[in-house]
Amino acid sequence: MSAESSKQAAIYSHRHLLGIERLTPEEIVTLLDLADEAVGVSRQVEKKKAVLRGRTQINLFFEASTRTQSSFEIAGKRLGADVMNMSVASSSVKKGETLIDTAATLNAMHPDLLVVRHHAAGAVALLARKTECSVVNAGDGAHEHPTQALLDALTIRRNLGRIEGLTVAICGDILHSRVARSNILLLSALNARVRVVAPPTLLPVGIENMVPEVFTSMKEGLKDADVVMMLRLQRERMSGSFIPSVREYFRYYGLDQEKLDYAKPGALVMHPGPMNRGVEIDPAIADGPQSVINEQVEMGVAVRMAVLEALAAHLPNR
Amino acid sequence: MSAESSKQAAIYSHRHLLGIERLTPEEIVTLLDLADEAVGVSRQVEKKKAVLRGRTQINLFFEASTRTQSSFEIAGKRLGADVMNMSVASSSVKKGETLIDTAATLNAMHPDLLVVRHHAAGAVALLARKTECSVVNAGDGAHEHPTQALLDALTIRRNLGRIEGLTVAICGDILHSRVARSNILLLSALNARVRVVAPPTLLPVGIENMVPEVFTSMKEGLKDADVVMMLRLQRERMSGSFIPSVREYFRYYGLDQEKLDYAKPGALVMHPGPMNRGVEIDPAIADGPQSVINEQVEMGVAVRMAVLEALAAHLPNR
Amino acid sequence: MSAESSKQAAIYSHRHLLGIERLTPEEIVTLLDLADEAVGVSRQVEKKKAVLRGRTQINLFFEASTRTQSSFEIAGKRLGADVMNMSVASSSVKKGETLIDTAATLNAMHPDLLVVRHHAAGAVALLARKTECSVVNAGDGAHEHPTQALLDALTIRRNLGRIEGLTVAICGDILHSRVARSNILLLSALNARVRVVAPPTLLPVGIENMVPEVFTSMKEGLKDADVVMMLRLQRERMSGSFIPSVREYFRYYGLDQEKLDYAKPGALVMHPGPMNRGVEIDPAIADGPQSVINEQVEMGVAVRMAVLEALAAHLPNR
Repeated sequence: MSAESSKQAAIYSHRHLLGIERLTPEEIVTLLDLADEAVGVSRQVEKKKAVLRGRTQINLFFEASTRTQSSFEIAGKRLGADVMNMSVASSSVKKGETLIDTAATLNAMHPDLLVVRHHAAGAVALLARKTECSVVNAGDGAHEHPTQALLDALTIRRNLGRIEGLTVAICGDILHSRVARSNILLLSALNARVRVVAPPTLLPVGIENMVPEVFTSMKEGLKDADVVMMLRLQRERMSGSFIPSVREYFRYYGLDQEKLDYAKPGALVMHPGPMNRGVEIDPAIADGPQSVINEQVEMGVAVRMAVLEALAAHLPNR
Repeated sequence: MSAESSKQAAIYSHRHLLGIERLTPEEIVTLLDLADEAVGVSRQVEKKKAVLRGRTQINLFFEASTRTQSSFEIAGKRLGADVMNMSVASSSVKKGETLIDTAATLNAMHPDLLVVRHHAAGAVALLARKTECSVVNAGDGAHEHPTQALLDALTIRRNLGRIEGLTVAICGDILHSRVARSNILLLSALNARVRVVAPPTLLPVGIENMVPEVFTSMKEGLKDADVVMMLRLQRERMSGSFIPSVREYFRYYGLDQEKLDYAKPGALVMHPGPMNRGVEIDPAIADGPQSVINEQVEMGVAVRMAVLEALAAHLPNR
Repeated sequence: MSAESSKQAAIYSHRHLLGIERLTPEEIVTLLDLADEAVGVSRQVEKKKAVLRGRTQINLFFEASTRTQSSFEIAGKRLGADVMNMSVASSSVKKGETLIDTAATLNAMHPDLLVVRHHAAGAVALLARKTECSVVNAGDGAHEHPTQALLDALTIRRNLGRIEGLTVAICGDILHSRVARSNILLLSALNARVRVVAPPTLLPVGIENMVPEVFTSMKEGLKDADVVMMLRLQRERMSGSFIPSVREYFRYYGLDQEKLDYAKPGALVMHPGPMNRGVEIDPAIADGPQSVINEQVEMGVAVRMAVLEALAAHLPNR
């Protein structure tokens, strides 16, 4: 770690990353700056640094996610950590062990970093309380997914030069989206103007307290937007008669050229992936010149390196 | 490896660890002493030693086990090995390959260490005969689970200062438990007084030839015990009318404060995990002051480092 | 990489290994020579070289394969790569992501090497076009499995001293076999005389354009063969009334002593594994003195090290 990045890491004062909610704007910017540095590093052959040498990072995924887990695994290995993947679905959980017992068991093995995805909001914070290691939230239920929000912000900042003052329209399945929630918190903290656009059935109760502008029409919601952030329609979290028809959903809320034209010329098009092409986004837009969707994935590795590096500064010198 | 630990490793004269049954008391103590050293090491950042550098360790698990597999993975990586996990359920076994062919295939890849869990007693010994690498038994059917017995002994020795002369009551599902079997062998070898306590239907035939004292009442079985070792009720290995009712089982054999009071004041409470809280153990006892259950997990990493280190001394200088 | 092997790697002029089809005889021999060197290396403790230090290798398996995946994982780790395994069945694919989106996602994480197995012929070539990393085909549908053909050739060359002029009989389920296809291409390129022997229902249409000699009788097909290469009967890829009876298949096409006697004395017996003992091969032959089946597996690690090393020479100096 350079003296510079060490200084930056020192500004990030938490032992965990459980959500955007607890971060100050300065801490968010610190992480984005660290990630900007990591972008270069992650492209060099001599990637490994001594940051996490001899440290054990456990990726504990209660929900499968190739994308996020791989990104954390690459980030940890590039920093020199011993990375272990644990898919918990197949094992102790089946034998009826409680989450707290799983936490106690893991803790007793003295890992340094625990990266957790869980289907229940709050499960990651519970693990953080019950273990002595640094915990990173890789998505907990409909609560938060902070590294996704950080990589989205990094992508925006690298393309548009700033976050402050931009109009960002988050569109689609807000109700089931931890990505939406973390993005609203982060972008608001950095003084972007955040809007949500969704059918009434996919808006959480009380959303108007989190974002000043709530729309049910893409035409109105995308007007003058600098960034159009589409969300995955999470049909697997819906039930019965509330599952919208794909055809109808695409007609009213899928991002196609006609709807994109409501936004500012050259507005960025984003999607956290994996995409349902033809559902929430037209393939021509996903692959079009305004799309930064692949750059988001690339920034994902950089942001996770930055987060792990920031947390490393708080690991005990065992 | 220090000169001291090298000397200790030399005392352990086997190329494998297939069970407690073949070990002398001196060899057991050697492994416990090595593990005691490893406890410190596993807490230091500069954990990696040159013990297994360039060596390939394959964790071959025919039964899923987050706890044991992770513990071996951490242990191997802390000693510098290249560790690979193979979950065999999903692959060649499905295609009808025999265990002996799997062994021949693995052997041809020249791994140095093979850590195996298998649902059939004797399968691990078969693999050891059919391969040239060092094999560690991570649990084979109802036969043995030697590293569990070693970590239990280490936990007892660190808390009570010795094994010899202690009264250890192993309680519950003795019938299906390889943990019980390895513990009986190890504790007897080190001159502890071992008892088993279980309902008649969960006692294996001929158990009285292995342990002098067999009880069906917790009150009698726990009297004057220094250590109360609870076992997991393995209902997944039972069938039909022999599955006990959870409520009744807990009433008669679940460890609660009332039953624990039959043992010596301050008796250690142990459980190999994962626990069925409210079945074989009252949560208040599992989390209470006499419980060393989490310490058992911690000692698991140290014991596995010790075993791998002891075996490393017998690997050919290829 | 030694100056010698560096020179050899330079002769291999491709950025990927997608099949045998695009290779010149010189390139094939280059890879075999590199693999011959690697055989020694893979038996030494100080195995790791700097060839892939700091490089990220992703094993992306859309079909499970313990054998091939492990072989690539060991090969990569022995060359110093950070190796990640991705089982795609369980994750994004389930969420409906297209193969091209998966490719774009992986590419954005900047891996250096991608080892891919896929159930569809051509899928690996598609991934190679859509990513910037070097791609190795670990088996795509019924198309090719080039490293298997290379390891088979290496095994033959090490046992018989040459490939040219040998008569090689490939026997059994030619129809479903990418192994057969890659072997036919490689052995023909190196001027072996290749025959196929199979029941008419397991011969692909137009096979006579690939190999000059096609037999439906083992007696005729094995006459004067130097090498008898048995194939796995892939019943899992067959349907309905076309699945042959195991008993009848073994009687007419299973390799037993009587049929092996048709070949030259001391002819090599090969099988890519996993074997169906008693179906396409008699266990006594599989384990007999003419069998080199385990040596094939051993050569698998060496060949994959050679391929990765050859591709490393073409990786950008990032």
